[in-house]
Amino acid sequence: MHGDGRARGGATRRIYEALKAQILDGTYAARAWLPSTRALAAELGVSRTTVTAAYEQLLSEGYLESRQGARSRVAPLERQQPTARRQASPSGSTQTPSGQGLAAEARLSRFGTSLADGPTWLPPASAGPIADFRYGDLSAADFPDAAWRQAVNAALRRRRPRLAYDDPSGSANLRAALQAYLWRARGLRCDPGQIIIVNGSQQGLDLAARVLVDPGDRVVMEDPGYVMARRVFASAGAYVVPVAVDEEGLKTDLLDGVGDARLAYVTPSHQFPLGGVLSARRRQALLSWSGRTGAYVIEDDYDGEYRYDIQPIPPLQTMADAENVLYLGTISKSLSPMLRLGYLVVPPPLRPAFAAAKQLIDRHSPVLEQEALSAMIVDGAYERHIRRSRRSNGRRREALLAALKAVLGDAVSISGADAGLHVVVWFERLDSALEAVLVEKARAAGIGLYPVAPLYASAGGRPDRAGIVMGYASLTETEIASGIAALAAVLGDITGNRG
Amino acid sequence: MHGDGRARGGATRRIYEALKAQILDGTYAARAWLPSTRALAAELGVSRTTVTAAYEQLLSEGYLESRQGARSRVAPLERQQPTARRQASPSGSTQTPSGQGLAAEARLSRFGTSLADGPTWLPPASAGPIADFRYGDLSAADFPDAAWRQAVNAALRRRRPRLAYDDPSGSANLRAALQAYLWRARGLRCDPGQIIIVNGSQQGLDLAARVLVDPGDRVVMEDPGYVMARRVFASAGAYVVPVAVDEEGLKTDLLDGVGDARLAYVTPSHQFPLGGVLSARRRQALLSWSGRTGAYVIEDDYDGEYRYDIQPIPPLQTMADAENVLYLGTISKSLSPMLRLGYLVVPPPLRPAFAAAKQLIDRHSPVLEQEALSAMIVDGAYERHIRRSRRSNGRRREALLAALKAVLGDAVSISGADAGLHVVVWFERLDSALEAVLVEKARAAGIGLYPVAPLYASAGGRPDRAGIVMGYASLTETEIASGIAALAAVLGDITGNRG
Repeated sequence: MHGDGRARGGATRRIYEALKAQILDGTYAARAWLPSTRALAAELGVSRTTVTAAYEQLLSEGYLESRQGARSRVAPLERQQPTARRQASPSGSTQTPSGQGLAAEARLSRFGTSLADGPTWLPPASAGPIADFRYGDLSAADFPDAAWRQAVNAALRRRRPRLAYDDPSGSANLRAALQAYLWRARGLRCDPGQIIIVNGSQQGLDLAARVLVDPGDRVVMEDPGYVMARRVFASAGAYVVPVAVDEEGLKTDLLDGVGDARLAYVTPSHQFPLGGVLSARRRQALLSWSGRTGAYVIEDDYDGEYRYDIQPIPPLQTMADAENVLYLGTISKSLSPMLRLGYLVVPPPLRPAFAAAKQLIDRHSPVLEQEALSAMIVDGAYERHIRRSRRSNGRRREALLAALKAVLGDAVSISGADAGLHVVVWFERLDSALEAVLVEKARAAGIGLYPVAPLYASAGGRPDRAGIVMGYASLTETEIASGIAALAAVLGDITGNRG
Repeated sequence: MHGDGRARGGATRRIYEALKAQILDGTYAARAWLPSTRALAAELGVSRTTVTAAYEQLLSEGYLESRQGARSRVAPLERQQPTARRQASPSGSTQTPSGQGLAAEARLSRFGTSLADGPTWLPPASAGPIADFRYGDLSAADFPDAAWRQAVNAALRRRRPRLAYDDPSGSANLRAALQAYLWRARGLRCDPGQIIIVNGSQQGLDLAARVLVDPGDRVVMEDPGYVMARRVFASAGAYVVPVAVDEEGLKTDLLDGVGDARLAYVTPSHQFPLGGVLSARRRQALLSWSGRTGAYVIEDDYDGEYRYDIQPIPPLQTMADAENVLYLGTISKSLSPMLRLGYLVVPPPLRPAFAAAKQLIDRHSPVLEQEALSAMIVDGAYERHIRRSRRSNGRRREALLAALKAVLGDAVSISGADAGLHVVVWFERLDSALEAVLVEKARAAGIGLYPVAPLYASAGGRPDRAGIVMGYASLTETEIASGIAALAAVLGDITGNRG
């Protein structure tokens, strides 16, 4: 499987180009460590071979230093654009003495060091010629442009006597609107004082990890589960304990073996990524465990708006004995991930600490988006948009399931199709060892696929079949059908070659 | 000085009303700890006596439990609005069995616990009848409504193929615009790759503390200094070492006595709050110390746009040997604190860790404000606004200095009037022990004043005169003049009574 560094496809070239540009522009300084090939491959959803090939090319061109062990680092170079403050001369020269001072190492905290191996963001692939099934992206065509523009302009017109820091917990208007919305849409009752507005659910997770978790504490996570949550808890110094899931969600009978946990992070309405709904029995078992041990439960209702068969599942937070439950919601799936708005509903005793922490970490979330969302909720535009969006995504889901059935038949099985904006597709006759190969060949053919393996905490829990997480919310029905047809060709190529 | 809990003025009443409402609506749950009177007084800029009186009133009315030591906590009550999820009955009853379960204690991390004593945000005072000199507030009349609305609408019209997470470091457009702006306005040259867009400077400080500081590390801060920075470093577990300042800024000759520090936080262009400019000799000494010890320096250029006598002071970051300097900028003083945008310029070796940390803590800052600010910078509207705003604030400053001189004469002396949006006023004939009395009596007379004492790390470094931090950017010249006239009356009342 080791490549020759030349005849590589688009993914290798894209990684090579991006890294070279980042080295030349000083984003990666001389002697800076690059992410490990494993970490970068997992983040980009490509095979490790693809990343290794890009690294080898950079090494051979002298951009990287010869590696000790598995890590690569940047060679000292003449930069295209040197660090500007090093230019003592006022001449505007764009050269700097080779390597001088640029070799400074970063001196990081343990938290900072824990990130060095973490995901690196690269620009989204320019839409493949066929279809990119990246989960989390939404179609710009679904966005309610007119309603949002109207809401933003209403917020812009709002007059205030003076410009001053707002309530760290969030805009009073938005919290009142969300209280009513959560009751109508999710059967969740709370006081606006329990709501903390955050910059997307990612900040909600980080806030909860900081306020509730000390280094060394145990945190329970579903396995497989949401990688960015696992990373938040791990960076907080927690020992993340993976607990297996099945079609009924988290296997709560395993909780007693976990030991003394501080927190459990769950996705009860629609387990990410496999799609199970946490059963009533297990909900009770989870809350009973939480009550017994004092562990908090974070309920991430990341796509609770999208349920195609039945009414949305009421949150855990609505049950009796849920006094340890923190509910986490977001508009990243209903409006746009670029707006960065989410909300926590915390138990009343936690409210002062969460408000103080939010004030400390960034004072409060931006007021403009908060007021605009509030206006959209109050005048009904938000829920009209959700109904419309649920229909659009229902059609995309139908198109995907129909195409998978028609083209791939019993070569695949599907998990989690009843809800949300993604499914997991299992390839019945493809060994899990070939998952990365499938993803890479599909990418070369213009299909963006994302492997399921990185979502598992360890290799041990993984099925022996290959699987992919397919998001469909950013695609047209035509793109979905073309994508699946092209995928079938790639799959035939692999299984034809291998058995 | 201990009050009787009845004949108190507006400040006590306002605190009492706000806390009672928060107790009744469940924001403070049964048995929740209230902030200490000391912490709340410092945060609100009122005397401790004022807060104590409010607490005593709440205690006597049964909202608080009798206190052990200095802390008060909420009594178990029948709520107006019980925690809704406790209502097993669907009848919509608004009563819940007294105290049942509501007594749950918050189980917090050390970070969370460190915040329990921290500032509590309360709504800004409805503008006093005369003038509120709170620092940090801006006048809504100065905000460039038309230009901002135009920029936001341009950003709203921008089309993207799909809605997806953006670069954690920030919008490429904004970073390019800031690179050019920082060069024009501040003589600072950097690569856009070094810029990390954050949600206001507060998030920049928190990000830096997390990425660079481990629990137990020493962090140098100016004394007096910015309280919210001190709180960030303390919450990160750092040992904050206060170093005195004089009219030349941080006394760098004291640095060698600090021991092994990880970081120094400074305000070299305009020391907060006293206003000194860090002298060239001390700049070199600071950078030399940083180079020798490997300590990073955070340069908070929080109001670098406002200099009335000379050209703005070039940042530390522009000097040779500044490779350990992180530059922190904000638009909270130039546009509005409610927009929540700021930027870090980090040394190249730190860029990967800061980008990864920003991704982990909230993915990225909201795109709408970033794109709008970028448009305003590119078309020149931002710098036109700053010039206009500098003139307005220059007039306010003149009005303030003239009124102080005319009305109070040599009873006061002024620190830091050459720059920024505030001055420190020292009362030459008023003992520092009377600072809180002055603040409280002024508030009762409709003048919002904020004492300087809480900005000192310890009582030892404090001058023996009373002092106040006076922000003027939110006031009209008329309000300023009336405010100072009223202040003179209050002062005469105190000194007349006391000597």
